[in-house]
Amino acid sequence: MSAGSDLAAIRERKPLVHQITNFVVMNETANATLAIGALPVMAHALQEVEEMASAASALVLNIGTLSDEWVESMFVAGRAANRAGVPVVLDPVGAGATSYRTDVSRRLLRELDIAVVRGNSAEIATLAGRSAEIRGVEAVGGGGGPELAREAARVLGTVAAVTGAVDHVSDGVTVNAVANGHELLGWVTGTGCMATAITGCFLAVRGDDPLAAATEALVAFGVAGEDAAVDAKGPGSFHVALYDALYSLDPDTFDSRAR
Amino acid sequence: MSAGSDLAAIRERKPLVHQITNFVVMNETANATLAIGALPVMAHALQEVEEMASAASALVLNIGTLSDEWVESMFVAGRAANRAGVPVVLDPVGAGATSYRTDVSRRLLRELDIAVVRGNSAEIATLAGRSAEIRGVEAVGGGGGPELAREAARVLGTVAAVTGAVDHVSDGVTVNAVANGHELLGWVTGTGCMATAITGCFLAVRGDDPLAAATEALVAFGVAGEDAAVDAKGPGSFHVALYDALYSLDPDTFDSRAR
Amino acid sequence: MSAGSDLAAIRERKPLVHQITNFVVMNETANATLAIGALPVMAHALQEVEEMASAASALVLNIGTLSDEWVESMFVAGRAANRAGVPVVLDPVGAGATSYRTDVSRRLLRELDIAVVRGNSAEIATLAGRSAEIRGVEAVGGGGGPELAREAARVLGTVAAVTGAVDHVSDGVTVNAVANGHELLGWVTGTGCMATAITGCFLAVRGDDPLAAATEALVAFGVAGEDAAVDAKGPGSFHVALYDALYSLDPDTFDSRAR
Repeated sequence: MSAGSDLAAIRERKPLVHQITNFVVMNETANATLAIGALPVMAHALQEVEEMASAASALVLNIGTLSDEWVESMFVAGRAANRAGVPVVLDPVGAGATSYRTDVSRRLLRELDIAVVRGNSAEIATLAGRSAEIRGVEAVGGGGGPELAREAARVLGTVAAVTGAVDHVSDGVTVNAVANGHELLGWVTGTGCMATAITGCFLAVRGDDPLAAATEALVAFGVAGEDAAVDAKGPGSFHVALYDALYSLDPDTFDSRAR
Repeated sequence: MSAGSDLAAIRERKPLVHQITNFVVMNETANATLAIGALPVMAHALQEVEEMASAASALVLNIGTLSDEWVESMFVAGRAANRAGVPVVLDPVGAGATSYRTDVSRRLLRELDIAVVRGNSAEIATLAGRSAEIRGVEAVGGGGGPELAREAARVLGTVAAVTGAVDHVSDGVTVNAVANGHELLGWVTGTGCMATAITGCFLAVRGDDPLAAATEALVAFGVAGEDAAVDAKGPGSFHVALYDALYSLDPDTFDSRAR
Repeated sequence: MSAGSDLAAIRERKPLVHQITNFVVMNETANATLAIGALPVMAHALQEVEEMASAASALVLNIGTLSDEWVESMFVAGRAANRAGVPVVLDPVGAGATSYRTDVSRRLLRELDIAVVRGNSAEIATLAGRSAEIRGVEAVGGGGGPELAREAARVLGTVAAVTGAVDHVSDGVTVNAVANGHELLGWVTGTGCMATAITGCFLAVRGDDPLAAATEALVAFGVAGEDAAVDAKGPGSFHVALYDALYSLDPDTFDSRAR
């Protein structure tokens, strides 16, 4: 299978992607999910997350505005997803910025079967046990690179997707580099969270190969960013064009766009 | 009164529309409410919903990201609205998708005096006791039609607005069909929720005739969707143009746009 | 220092602005914060607000969708900010609309060291002990003016920024008037909240002079509104252009734009 055929599969099957995510980006990740062709559902109540996660084709956990009740729901949903064979992607937003975020991320990685963890270099380095500098939810100073992705994947026992100017995705052996993207992605909040949601969409049709799914997702999101930047006047118009670009991604030419 | 004069009344009176709604669409339904000319207020704390609902001209209840605390506030606000004669519209987002959503929707309909329930065919069919297929919060397979709206209105004792390619609104006797709208509405999250918020705006000036209010609201939202689609390149630019189109609806020509 | 040099300082230092704000506008205030050049972080859990607020360069408290748990977090974060010398700006959204909002706003002002309170004329008048009319979260009837800002600053012991057709900012002695802005700002939800977030950005680099910081913030936001209106077709396209305009503000010409 190619990235293009996986994109076509998303469009055809319209998989349900259950997301327990943060208040800042819920609308944005739902719209990114719809724009690429999948169906988002946001549900966090303890009374329903088990039922919803079991019925989904992928589960997205994002700790961007975490609190204890939401974290408890993430565990319940995650266990239900694991039992049902539904792949789970984790976005450890702000791991390293507060000990609460670091601890919750570690517990989620330890107690759940996470297919992919997607974060910036500071978040992933923190979880891999390296020192890192983070300001709020932004990595400071860069770093990362292929070795961080490989090491994190080994330490955490999951596919690690480290995004930045160049993204690196690894299963602990292979490292895929993705150079797609645009500088304006850093000027819009939630673009990392959207990349994680898109990863959930690809996992929904390619759960058998999380390395491929995560790589294809970052290519898709990066290509959309490149297309969105063409006529953008700033972060506002870029943000709007990003949904148009995700919607307009063409499965037939998609493979040739990867950089 | 005509739809155009009701739209003009919204613009002139700027009624307050209290909304207890979901995290995904709060910004979007607030902006849709402003764009058509009313004033939105979001408030969910038990300490204030009674006071806020009593002061409003309509109350919107939307269970899209429900939890027990929020549901309790919906009951308190709903009872206050009922006592004060403030019309209530319910959006049973995802009824049928989890038993929690179905149960809460049924309780709200049973214990409160709901003027209008607005949902997709699967949500309304579930509440009317029919079988339905729903994937997350999306109706699968269509169905519905005028008979579903009529039957739901009778069973539930409220005006039922079933939206889809063609919308049907019924009080159990009359069924109004609204063919306005555009396919891109299905590619943006929260457009159903916005239609419900707009229904609240029309109820605020036309609470004496919920069948007319709900019908006019769906015409207004559908016409705005048609206008927004003219120059849209995808769901992002369509979404933005939707607010411009709601803002630009012209009371003088509005009646002639209904299809 | 001039407004232009403070804007340049934001762009250069990229200060972290911790925001405990409402569900309706979180994405919007985060994007406004990024667009002007600072780094937003949203965090409300009791377990982390102390750590996050202490690490930030400014703290924004906004009660737009308050509940007791969030208010408790605001107090904990506010005390941590006060201890660390991090300036705090308060947005008392809807003070006067319900007694809960009025009471919480008064307690925050009494128990915390607030550098700036930013609100509309009804909110500020309510807190200053004057009578005011508010519909939901919108001031009705105008009023305000320089005397309200001056009196509120004296009564509340903080810089008061009263926004409206003309904004007035006072420390109880001096009153600065800002005539920048555009009528379309009133048609988009959360523009007041964005103005408060931008005030946090300027406080982060100009905490020594809250009167200057608040004034410069309102000039910046008003100028961006003017630029955004140039090609806007309504509130949707205006909203998008507002982020582009904040991003495009030029420190070199900024001082000359103040009106």
